[in-house]
Amino acid sequence: MGGRKGVLGQVRSKAAKVAAGVGRTPKCDARKAKVASRTWGVQEQRGRRHLSLSTLVSRGVGESGEFTSTIFDVEDVSLAGSKESILRGGRDKFGLLAKAFEGIKTIGVCGWGSQGPAQAQNIRDSIEAAGLSGDVKVKIGLRKGRPSWEEATACGFTEESGTLGETFDVVAESDLLLLLISDGAQASLYPRVLAAMKPGATLGLSHGFLLGVMKNDGVDFRDDINVVLVAPKGMGPSVRRLYEQGKSVNGSGINASFAVHQDYTGNATEIALGWSIALGSPFTFRTTLESEYKSDIYGERCCILGGVHGIVESLFRRYEAQGMSPEDAFINSVESITGPINSIISKRGMKAVYEELDGEGKEIFMKAYSASFGPSMDICYEIYEDVACGNEIKSVVNATNRFDRFPMGTIDQTRMWKVGEEVRAKRVEEDIPLNPFTAGVYVANMMATLTTLREKGHNWSEICNESIIEAVDSLNPYMHARGVAFMVDNCSFTARLGTRKWGPRFDYNLVQQAYVAIDNGAGVNDELKQEFLNHDVHSALAVCAELRPSVDISVSTDEAVGAGKARTQYKSSKANA
Amino acid sequence: MGGRKGVLGQVRSKAAKVAAGVGRTPKCDARKAKVASRTWGVQEQRGRRHLSLSTLVSRGVGESGEFTSTIFDVEDVSLAGSKESILRGGRDKFGLLAKAFEGIKTIGVCGWGSQGPAQAQNIRDSIEAAGLSGDVKVKIGLRKGRPSWEEATACGFTEESGTLGETFDVVAESDLLLLLISDGAQASLYPRVLAAMKPGATLGLSHGFLLGVMKNDGVDFRDDINVVLVAPKGMGPSVRRLYEQGKSVNGSGINASFAVHQDYTGNATEIALGWSIALGSPFTFRTTLESEYKSDIYGERCCILGGVHGIVESLFRRYEAQGMSPEDAFINSVESITGPINSIISKRGMKAVYEELDGEGKEIFMKAYSASFGPSMDICYEIYEDVACGNEIKSVVNATNRFDRFPMGTIDQTRMWKVGEEVRAKRVEEDIPLNPFTAGVYVANMMATLTTLREKGHNWSEICNESIIEAVDSLNPYMHARGVAFMVDNCSFTARLGTRKWGPRFDYNLVQQAYVAIDNGAGVNDELKQEFLNHDVHSALAVCAELRPSVDISVSTDEAVGAGKARTQYKSSKANA
Repeated sequence: MGGRKGVLGQVRSKAAKVAAGVGRTPKCDARKAKVASRTWGVQEQRGRRHLSLSTLVSRGVGESGEFTSTIFDVEDVSLAGSKESILRGGRDKFGLLAKAFEGIKTIGVCGWGSQGPAQAQNIRDSIEAAGLSGDVKVKIGLRKGRPSWEEATACGFTEESGTLGETFDVVAESDLLLLLISDGAQASLYPRVLAAMKPGATLGLSHGFLLGVMKNDGVDFRDDINVVLVAPKGMGPSVRRLYEQGKSVNGSGINASFAVHQDYTGNATEIALGWSIALGSPFTFRTTLESEYKSDIYGERCCILGGVHGIVESLFRRYEAQGMSPEDAFINSVESITGPINSIISKRGMKAVYEELDGEGKEIFMKAYSASFGPSMDICYEIYEDVACGNEIKSVVNATNRFDRFPMGTIDQTRMWKVGEEVRAKRVEEDIPLNPFTAGVYVANMMATLTTLREKGHNWSEICNESIIEAVDSLNPYMHARGVAFMVDNCSFTARLGTRKWGPRFDYNLVQQAYVAIDNGAGVNDELKQEFLNHDVHSALAVCAELRPSVDISVSTDEAVGAGKARTQYKSSKANA
Repeated sequence: MGGRKGVLGQVRSKAAKVAAGVGRTPKCDARKAKVASRTWGVQEQRGRRHLSLSTLVSRGVGESGEFTSTIFDVEDVSLAGSKESILRGGRDKFGLLAKAFEGIKTIGVCGWGSQGPAQAQNIRDSIEAAGLSGDVKVKIGLRKGRPSWEEATACGFTEESGTLGETFDVVAESDLLLLLISDGAQASLYPRVLAAMKPGATLGLSHGFLLGVMKNDGVDFRDDINVVLVAPKGMGPSVRRLYEQGKSVNGSGINASFAVHQDYTGNATEIALGWSIALGSPFTFRTTLESEYKSDIYGERCCILGGVHGIVESLFRRYEAQGMSPEDAFINSVESITGPINSIISKRGMKAVYEELDGEGKEIFMKAYSASFGPSMDICYEIYEDVACGNEIKSVVNATNRFDRFPMGTIDQTRMWKVGEEVRAKRVEEDIPLNPFTAGVYVANMMATLTTLREKGHNWSEICNESIIEAVDSLNPYMHARGVAFMVDNCSFTARLGTRKWGPRFDYNLVQQAYVAIDNGAGVNDELKQEFLNHDVHSALAVCAELRPSVDISVSTDEAVGAGKARTQYKSSKANA
């Protein structure tokens, strides 16, 4: 606390501003969460007199996803009847980076976890391709003596060339500072980082997590900087790999959301869009910091990581208990999801999985779907509200503070995942069955994940990306390649902790409620069936599919992911930079 | 919110008092939780000038458990070297109730869940036995038209006799108000309840939960009332059943903790002790509201409910996978714990379980213990810190607000618990084996539960009761009689939700870490073994055993528990009174 308190003057203390009574921690249930979000801006307490554009931009979970740019061509798309804006990426846009990054000499990248190595290298390559290497420098900020320092050097970022330095030196030097240190480190270091930044500089985040932490702490960002976000919807290694493939295939990459939380200089939107273009994002859609962290932290706990983990654990046991061999149980649970089910959803959407089945298969699918949807919704709602009211972020920060004593354990050394290793070694991709029961349970979890997001007011572009596209195009391929830990433990601490926390909950709810109901003869719920078949998400997803990157993620089965090696080794070292 | 806001003036708004900056929500990890607890009293911010005795009494998690009384004979006990005070109960103390309840004409009991029916009837019987029926009246406060109204009438509390009325009428009339409505209802109704109370009256709680809610809300109790707690360490039905048995066997009952949070009249301690004596508590030890809700909400999530549930689920699967029949798997997991292991711990302590085993058994026990202790500690710490920083209470309040849409599901309809029904029907008590592996895992969970409490500064009397005695003497007998739901779902919403939330986490941590380690040949950890064998808890527990109630809980296997029928039917109706 000591060091922190000293610089707290650099962040704006909410408590210092509010009148008596206003500072009460708002209780947060479904309705109250909305109130809390609406009353977050201190200015609003004083009759909206001081409402700035940035405040407006940053607030609305339920607001439209429209935006404009004076540099980039922004397109309109209609998602299930809602108009949203998107920016299409591609190497042909690199020529506009000079204008977007006007006035930016140093892009600092602090952190060398999942996103750091990928983003730093992509931006460096894009700047070079744009002929801007002489004007804009990408500089990595790390602690000397740590393994990451050597890794960055091996990637061509060196002290000698002035592209590698101590974290806080780089923070102070950056015109655009990409703060890509771990969530836990952000929570403990943000007062120092904010204090060290140049006035007029831009703070770039790839996750709204920090806003959640600062809300829990009751403080705002300082006024004299831009605060923007570009959040690729996939792990760093994919962001890098697909970018490299995109050098020959235009349009390859990972989609990203962007947000402008604070626009001090007036051109924060252009800087954020330039950053996303430089990363190689095939398309970029708009969100807010608040909406991003809620949907992201929520989504990874639901179908993207936690949900799918709990599902396959429960299905593997169920199939074995029904008499399948361990190998067949694995093939019909994990392999079926990461193989054919994933492939169909990615290319043709969720309904296509159902339509692919014969009559008997459709019936099995729909029974499994009917029984699983409610118990999955139950957990999804709990997760959403725990994220929205700040609980989940507080728990994550507490957990990272315990890492020295309680590091995260491995999750893939159980019998099931050992069986999986053997199954993968003998895999014939075309022989993996589309198990209709598995499909019904899995799609129900996806539908529960996205239904909750929609009920909570998120945009369709965010919903499609945070609940479905990220799952099938970014994450599942990792589990397909090398099992559950390779998927989960290549993600952030926040995601890894969340998977461990919520996966077991989905598992238990399915076993105790859904499977029990099915075994007791529960049939198809026709209302749920019609809702699924006629759901708005299918058309929204179809539009997103047209914007789909041109190259699939391909994950090597016999080598490390590349960037961010420390992360791929599942280390749980203390979460300080 | 509307109705609530109107009476918020009746509670003291912390925000209204604090100077700028003081109102920041404190972040809470291990160390910070302590800071938060120490800086909670507003007065302390102003240099301790206004520190009252009640503020001191209410603060110290780590304070001694000593107290005095001018009416009752308080005894000193030494628990592992720490001096604590206890009040021994018994029917021979009823004669002192007249003095303890001086000035109290009406004892209002609001709520008819687990504790309400039991406490109301016990107190009424005690008052009658003390010859005070003409002076002190026990009056139930409920909503007319609800099933509970009929149940109370059937228990002899009637509108005609003036011993049953509408909730808020009873609140306004009470000199001692026992607020035994559900936790969720307390969270939503407390401002109205506090507003309706008479100045100088005593608010009696059986759980510190409300203090946690009010801390999250940033408000204090009004100044002009007493606030005390008496918390029986068992479910209401046991409190009633053992009291009835105590009419013939003096000393039968459930132990209780008590706390004085606010002493406006100067005799709050005597009132609280009188309440505990009237309930029939064999012995009463001191705590604080804060310490009580932390240890209680934590303990039920750990070995008392959540831990044991996760353990038996994981062990049943393990034993089946190792080739046991479903029946044997159930016998060696659930039956072994609720039968011989429980019985030995209850009568002779945890170490006696180990000592009961032969050489090979001791080795198996210690291997299981060594592998399970760490993964259990991991979850225990997470639970404690989630409870201490207010997260868990906020989540519970949110969950109860979702009950209309997402009622809690059943947990005992899976194959395992169906097998359990058959096993229980054929049970021969003497034939249940003491499985050394099961014992090692279970005792490790108990040790993790209590080690965390001790590290967090709780008193030995509270630790022994909240982690071990409540488990073996109050809760496990219910699972022994009729399975897991009969134990879990006879408890409060807070406990039921917590079991569903944390049980699966213990399960996964054991399967992914402990059992994997054992299967990979991990041996006995000698340091953990010595720590266990020489742990302070054994002597503390031995002293507690001398104070053990003279009658075991006996749970009928073929009938409802009696009091609080609505609860035993596992209803999840909206948590408003």
